[in-house]
Amino acid sequence: MQLNETHDPTLRSWVAGADDRDGDFPPQNLPYGTFRHADDEPWRAGVAIGERILDLGRLATAAPFDGLAGEALAACAAPAHDGRLNGLMALGADHWHALRLALSRGLRADADAARRAPLEAALRPMAGARHATPAHIGDYTDFYISLHHATAVGRQFRPDQPLLPNYKWVPIGYHGRASSLGVQPAFRRPVGQTRPPRDGEPPAFGPSQRLDYELEMAIYIGPGNPQGQRIPMAQAEGHVFGLGLLNDWSARDIQAWEYQPLGPFLGKSFASTLSPWIVTLEALAPFRAPLRRPAGDPAPLPYLASDGNASAGAFDVRLQVDLSTELSRRAGHPAATLSRSNFRDAYWTVAQLVTHHTVNGCNLRAGDLLGTGTLSGPGPDEAGSLLELAEGGKSPLALPWGETRTFLQDGDEIRLSAHCVAPDRRRIGFGSACGRVLAADWA
Amino acid sequence: MQLNETHDPTLRSWVAGADDRDGDFPPQNLPYGTFRHADDEPWRAGVAIGERILDLGRLATAAPFDGLAGEALAACAAPAHDGRLNGLMALGADHWHALRLALSRGLRADADAARRAPLEAALRPMAGARHATPAHIGDYTDFYISLHHATAVGRQFRPDQPLLPNYKWVPIGYHGRASSLGVQPAFRRPVGQTRPPRDGEPPAFGPSQRLDYELEMAIYIGPGNPQGQRIPMAQAEGHVFGLGLLNDWSARDIQAWEYQPLGPFLGKSFASTLSPWIVTLEALAPFRAPLRRPAGDPAPLPYLASDGNASAGAFDVRLQVDLSTELSRRAGHPAATLSRSNFRDAYWTVAQLVTHHTVNGCNLRAGDLLGTGTLSGPGPDEAGSLLELAEGGKSPLALPWGETRTFLQDGDEIRLSAHCVAPDRRRIGFGSACGRVLAADWA
Repeated sequence: MQLNETHDPTLRSWVAGADDRDGDFPPQNLPYGTFRHADDEPWRAGVAIGERILDLGRLATAAPFDGLAGEALAACAAPAHDGRLNGLMALGADHWHALRLALSRGLRADADAARRAPLEAALRPMAGARHATPAHIGDYTDFYISLHHATAVGRQFRPDQPLLPNYKWVPIGYHGRASSLGVQPAFRRPVGQTRPPRDGEPPAFGPSQRLDYELEMAIYIGPGNPQGQRIPMAQAEGHVFGLGLLNDWSARDIQAWEYQPLGPFLGKSFASTLSPWIVTLEALAPFRAPLRRPAGDPAPLPYLASDGNASAGAFDVRLQVDLSTELSRRAGHPAATLSRSNFRDAYWTVAQLVTHHTVNGCNLRAGDLLGTGTLSGPGPDEAGSLLELAEGGKSPLALPWGETRTFLQDGDEIRLSAHCVAPDRRRIGFGSACGRVLAADWA
Repeated sequence: MQLNETHDPTLRSWVAGADDRDGDFPPQNLPYGTFRHADDEPWRAGVAIGERILDLGRLATAAPFDGLAGEALAACAAPAHDGRLNGLMALGADHWHALRLALSRGLRADADAARRAPLEAALRPMAGARHATPAHIGDYTDFYISLHHATAVGRQFRPDQPLLPNYKWVPIGYHGRASSLGVQPAFRRPVGQTRPPRDGEPPAFGPSQRLDYELEMAIYIGPGNPQGQRIPMAQAEGHVFGLGLLNDWSARDIQAWEYQPLGPFLGKSFASTLSPWIVTLEALAPFRAPLRRPAGDPAPLPYLASDGNASAGAFDVRLQVDLSTELSRRAGHPAATLSRSNFRDAYWTVAQLVTHHTVNGCNLRAGDLLGTGTLSGPGPDEAGSLLELAEGGKSPLALPWGETRTFLQDGDEIRLSAHCVAPDRRRIGFGSACGRVLAADWA
């Protein structure tokens, strides 16, 4: 992807808050989401800019853009999509670029009045906005692309062989549950069976005692592929619309008892939390970087080999997990940062995930979601889950206000956030994926 | 479920073929599906009756029914559902019964002209009909509820411990891929990585050499549940619309290499084949039967315990798998029956699957699909997959026309079929789920 005028770090905007140096949503970003301010409003597709949301549904009624940009805008506003981005996602990179360019030109500080007027009329406050998942997500696949996470978790179960023999060849993934994905602010602690206290006894049953979060990125598919036709590496990123954040909440005790031999099920499917905004691949173009794979590892099989250009590499995205608790919020303490990591430290690229997913002929559809799996980095303070940070419960984490945690307690709130920075660039951010644990509905 | 006049075994119909003693679609059945006769027609919801399909879209324009039956018919014809049954599924058992009763009264041989006329005007031939999946399937879960299958497959991998310790406590299941479900007549052999020929070498890569079928039943969800609210056993069947057939094609070699630690992925997601017709739970009411669980097995945990009435038991559905090959079809041989089994031999009931699936708060949605997993019976000729019948490739199956099979070859066609019979009852059938293997797209 070539850098273009939408990436110009000197771009400023006339929209309130868009020029805040620490803000997530400068004019170089322009992420897409779905929002409304009241339950009786229809969901709308929108673009985050500074402290405002540009209402694409309202903007479309003014039809300010011609050509591909106009088609792309109309797709955002089509009633069939109910404010979700599936229509735009299905159109592909030329349309995405055209709409981004048209929005950028209208939002920049030096836009003339004719360009600015329709956008200004379509601005809504970001404060008070509610969000839905930014796409109707047909299928959700969750991968496992952090070597550091796989090794740390594997070590707890198989100290002699933390990493299974397939890991460095196969981008390991599994099908996830789409219905329980949401931008929901809270969910109930799951109930279920867990391993019997002693072999041969009946399993235990009740609220999960080992509830955890997982720090992941969310990859949204753009145009899909027909069933039976795989997507080669050279075309893979053309099928990706953008990235968001994903918290793949996990009940470790339910999962440990149920997952043999077919994988995670009820330990995951109670809730997964998405961030409201999707940052497009085009917005991420200035933040490409090589993967940091360990030297000496085997080269990927030919179908997963990149053509060597930068676009096949990684994204330098800085990730962060923050925790607040009932006690910390009541006492007015700031949230505690549990860890920081970087998407660059993943073992497989976004393109490799798309190509691997379709190599067997599986069809992806616009709006499908690929989770990366927990994005832990190489250092002990870069772990993306409590399972790793507290070593499976053995090393309770001390919080600044005096509490400790091995797993999540009722009332705990986890906020995932992320941003990109680079020399001579404007910071762009992902907003956050935020969720709170409620007590189990269980007597 | 009480038997009622729609189950009367003496019912006859004025529709051609509906009184055929060996037919699948007598007036006691009335299964739902989605059909059209040409690519430029819209998909329509329909009911199979004898050699005809009752076009519910056309019937709805005549609005022949009042009350709940009229509402149910309108839901079948609503354009938003594009001929799929999701609208009807969401309404619940009272609506389903009302529509079934109204259709039964209009289709019976002694229906008066006023009742018969609008139905007659909406009949289309079954010959030449094409089908889509009968629902927009939001999520697909595949279970593993045949003890006989789990034991036979487990024995191949773990001779000393075929059955894992969780099996008799947890209805084992995993999330499947919804996008590649279809009523498609053919699919390409999948390509992928398989286990390295020798440890430490790179994996092999190419078309699957161990392609298999799996004989399953498909359970379609009716009204869903809100996220966080589980469905108790006593209400579980009220959330089930009906049953169909499912062939969960499996690339055993791809699966064996990829599935640790997160379960099946590309070994399954290339294609799964559904039968076009959904037989409703109400139609199945005369064919309830107790499960045949081994004596002495542990009682289910309380949340999975039935209240002891018949509706919590099994369904006596006779299942059959037939194979034809390029050679057999060219030579005019009839298809070979590979096995027969019965849904009664499953270890868990439909109600237990629904309750277990939601115990953690996972939300089901109307049209969601639960696969049962391979339905093998206790006998060696009741195995629901080639993996079992040919013992993982060790015992090639001799076909009547002289070929042998360990796994599927290009051109092989598998037809799953099923029906119910009981003394003094009319046979009702499921039609078939039929799919053919095409050569891999691979050079």
